[in-house]
Amino acid sequence: MLLKEIREELVELNQALPANRLVVWTGGNVSIRDPKSGLVAIKPSGIMFPDLTPENMVVVDLDGKQLEGDLAPSSDTASHLYIYRHREDINGVVHTHSDYATAFAALGMPIPAVLTAIGDEFGGPIPCGDFALIGSEAIGKAVLDAIGNTTAVLLKNHGVFTIGKSGRAALKSAVMVEDVAKTVWLAKQLGEPCEISQEDLKKLNERYMNVYGQH
Amino acid sequence: MLLKEIREELVELNQALPANRLVVWTGGNVSIRDPKSGLVAIKPSGIMFPDLTPENMVVVDLDGKQLEGDLAPSSDTASHLYIYRHREDINGVVHTHSDYATAFAALGMPIPAVLTAIGDEFGGPIPCGDFALIGSEAIGKAVLDAIGNTTAVLLKNHGVFTIGKSGRAALKSAVMVEDVAKTVWLAKQLGEPCEISQEDLKKLNERYMNVYGQH
Amino acid sequence: MLLKEIREELVELNQALPANRLVVWTGGNVSIRDPKSGLVAIKPSGIMFPDLTPENMVVVDLDGKQLEGDLAPSSDTASHLYIYRHREDINGVVHTHSDYATAFAALGMPIPAVLTAIGDEFGGPIPCGDFALIGSEAIGKAVLDAIGNTTAVLLKNHGVFTIGKSGRAALKSAVMVEDVAKTVWLAKQLGEPCEISQEDLKKLNERYMNVYGQH
Amino acid sequence: MLLKEIREELVELNQALPANRLVVWTGGNVSIRDPKSGLVAIKPSGIMFPDLTPENMVVVDLDGKQLEGDLAPSSDTASHLYIYRHREDINGVVHTHSDYATAFAALGMPIPAVLTAIGDEFGGPIPCGDFALIGSEAIGKAVLDAIGNTTAVLLKNHGVFTIGKSGRAALKSAVMVEDVAKTVWLAKQLGEPCEISQEDLKKLNERYMNVYGQH
Repeated sequence: MLLKEIREELVELNQALPANRLVVWTGGNVSIRDPKSGLVAIKPSGIMFPDLTPENMVVVDLDGKQLEGDLAPSSDTASHLYIYRHREDINGVVHTHSDYATAFAALGMPIPAVLTAIGDEFGGPIPCGDFALIGSEAIGKAVLDAIGNTTAVLLKNHGVFTIGKSGRAALKSAVMVEDVAKTVWLAKQLGEPCEISQEDLKKLNERYMNVYGQH
Repeated sequence: MLLKEIREELVELNQALPANRLVVWTGGNVSIRDPKSGLVAIKPSGIMFPDLTPENMVVVDLDGKQLEGDLAPSSDTASHLYIYRHREDINGVVHTHSDYATAFAALGMPIPAVLTAIGDEFGGPIPCGDFALIGSEAIGKAVLDAIGNTTAVLLKNHGVFTIGKSGRAALKSAVMVEDVAKTVWLAKQLGEPCEISQEDLKKLNERYMNVYGQH
Repeated sequence: MLLKEIREELVELNQALPANRLVVWTGGNVSIRDPKSGLVAIKPSGIMFPDLTPENMVVVDLDGKQLEGDLAPSSDTASHLYIYRHREDINGVVHTHSDYATAFAALGMPIPAVLTAIGDEFGGPIPCGDFALIGSEAIGKAVLDAIGNTTAVLLKNHGVFTIGKSGRAALKSAVMVEDVAKTVWLAKQLGEPCEISQEDLKKLNERYMNVYGQH
Repeated sequence: MLLKEIREELVELNQALPANRLVVWTGGNVSIRDPKSGLVAIKPSGIMFPDLTPENMVVVDLDGKQLEGDLAPSSDTASHLYIYRHREDINGVVHTHSDYATAFAALGMPIPAVLTAIGDEFGGPIPCGDFALIGSEAIGKAVLDAIGNTTAVLLKNHGVFTIGKSGRAALKSAVMVEDVAKTVWLAKQLGEPCEISQEDLKKLNERYMNVYGQH
C-alpha cells in the first residue's frame, strides 16, 4: 500500500478537526504530501470523521491522478495539489470553516495583528483572499495569491486554508487561527484593539520560530 | 414490533441533538417515516435523551392514531405528520431550539446566503416562517408555507425545523443550519457580510448535491 | 444517617451544574428539602464538585441548626432556608452564576419573553431582583420579593436562583434559564426581538405544564 | 529527583489549562515554587499537554539556573522567577491567553468590578499591565507593576497572568478570571453594567477569603 506510514497520521489529523471544534459533519479536510515520493494522501469526500481509516484515505499524484483508494477524494483535491505544485516547502494543507475565522472571511476582512499570539505564529495580519468556486484549482490559486509568507489565509465568503512544512504544522496553524480569530472578534466588540508595531511583530515571530519549543 | 429497524436509528438521531449541542434537557425531537408502510416513529414527549430506547419510541399513522408505544408522543407530532402528508419526498423531520438559529427566529429574520456552506446545503437564504402555537398542525403548516425548496426553516419566536429524504438528512440540515447561523451571526457583529450571487449559489448547491460525497 | 435517600440525588444534582456548564470551580449550589421531615440537605461550602459524596452533604433544620455533616454548609444556606420557610410548595433550590443569565443580572435587566421556550417554562419575563450581600438571608428575601409565580430570578450584579417543587425541577429551571438567556442575548445583538403576547404566553405555559410530557 | 512531590501536581495543574479551555495547542504554562528549597518547577517549552509527565518537568533555581530536566523550560521562565523573587508570599504562577480575558487585554482595558464573583475572588477590578516582549523578565515586571494586591492581571495585547500562595490557588484565579471576563464581556454588549460599591466589594472579598469554604 502506498504511503502506509502517512495514512494513520492523516486520519489522526483529520479527526483532530472536529476534536478542536473546527468543523461540523463532514466539512473540512487535511492532506499530506510525502516528501520522498511526491505523492499526496487526502481525505475522501463526504465521509463522517469517525468513519475515516488508514485504508480509505485516497492517494493521488501531483496531477490529480488517483493511484489508490476506492472512494472519491475531497472536492478540494485540485486546490491542495495546486498548492503543493507551487510550494515545494509545503507538505501539509488544512481546510476548515471554523466559525470565528470564517466570520471575518464573510466580510473579506483580514484579522489584524493585535495579539502577541498572532505575532508568534503568523508574524502579521492574517490575510483574506478572493472568493473562488470549489471544484477546480481556483481556490488553491486564491490561497497562494493572498497568503504571502504566513501559514493561514481566509477566503472570502468561504473559510480558512492553512499550510505547513508538515500536516501537523498546518493543523497547528488551523487551531491557532481560530483561537486568535475568536479573541480578536471579542476584542472588536469592546472597541478598537491596539495594533502591535511591525518591529515587535517581527521580534515575536523570530523568537517563536527559532527559540520557542525544543531544538 | 412495528418499524423495528427504524427505532434504533431514531434513538441515535434523537441523541445526536444534545451531542451536537442543538437542544437542552428534553427539548427538540426527531421523527422518521417508514417509506414502505407510511408509518411514522417519533420521540415520546418530555423524556430525557439518555432514557430513550428503541422500545419507548412511539409509532403513529399519518392521521395521528397511536399504534404502538406506552408513552405519549412528542407535542409536535401533529406538525410532523402535516409535513409528511404534504411532502411525499420527505421521510425525516427534526425540530430544535438551537441557539444561534433561534436568535434569528426571535426577530423573524432569515439567515442571508453569505457563506459558501449556505449555498452548498441550502442553495439560498434560510427563510423564517410565521409564529404558530404548539399542539395542533399549525406549526407544520407554517413550516411548509415558508420552507420553499430548501431543507431548513426558522419559525418566528420559536426555533428551527429541518426536513430531509431521511432522518439522517434532516439531522445533517439541523447541524448545518446552527453552524452557519453562528458564523453569520458572528459576521454581522463585524459589519455587513457580502452576499453571494444567485448564480454562484446555484452552482454551489448543484455541485454539493450531485458531485460532493460518494456516488 | 438522616435523609439517606436524598443525599445521592443531591450529589447528582450538584454535579449536573458543571456538567451543564452553569458553574466553574466550586461556585453554585443545590439544596433539597425532604417534604416528610422538613429537613434540608445542602452542598458543603467550597468543595470541588468531583469531591462531593452522599456522606459529605450537610443536613440542617429550617432554622439553620446543623444536624449532620462534618463540613460547613454552603454560604447560601440561610437564603435557601428563607425560601423554604416562606414557600411550602418549594422543595428544591439551585444557585448559579451561569454566564448569559448573569450578564442580564449585571445590568439589573429582566429577560424578556421573546421565545416560546420562555413561555413554556417561565410563563413570562424572567425578573431581576435587588442586589443583596451573601451570608445572611437577605438573598433569599430578594429572591422571593422578585420571583412572583415563575421559577427563576436574576439577582442584580450576582447570578441566578431557581426554585422547584423538587430539586430536579429547580435544576431544570436553571438549565433552561441559561439556554433562553443565551438565545435572547444573541437575538438582542441582531436587533429588537419581537415580544410574544400575554395571551400566547399563557397558552404556552398552561400547555407545557399540563399537556407536555407524560401524565 | 528534585521536587519529586511537586512534579505530579504540576502536571495536573498544567493539564487543567486545556481541560478548562484556557489554552490551545502548547500555549500557557504553570510553575510551582517549593517553599522549603526555594526551587521552581515549570512546564517545558512547546510540549503538547498530554505529553507532560512528572519526569519532563524542568527544575530551576531562582536565578534561572537549570538544575534538572532534559528539555528547555517555558519561554516565560525568567518572568515567573522575577515574580517569585519579588513576592515571597507567592508559590504558584499561571499564564494563559484565555479568550475573553485576552479580549480585554487587546484594548488595554481592565475588567470592571460589576459582579459579586469579582468582589469575592479579586476584591476589585482586574487591572491591565503594559505590553512587554517575551523572553526576558520584562513580563514579570509588568505583572508585578500592575497587579496590586489582587491575584490576576491582564497584559496589554497579550494575555493573563495569575498568582497564588500555591499553584492550585493561581489556577483557581485563572479559571475565575476567564469566567468573570466572559460574563462582563456579555454584559457590556447589553449596555453599561452597574458597578458594585467599594464598601460592598470589600465585604465580599473579606467574607470569601475568611468565611467561605472549610476552615
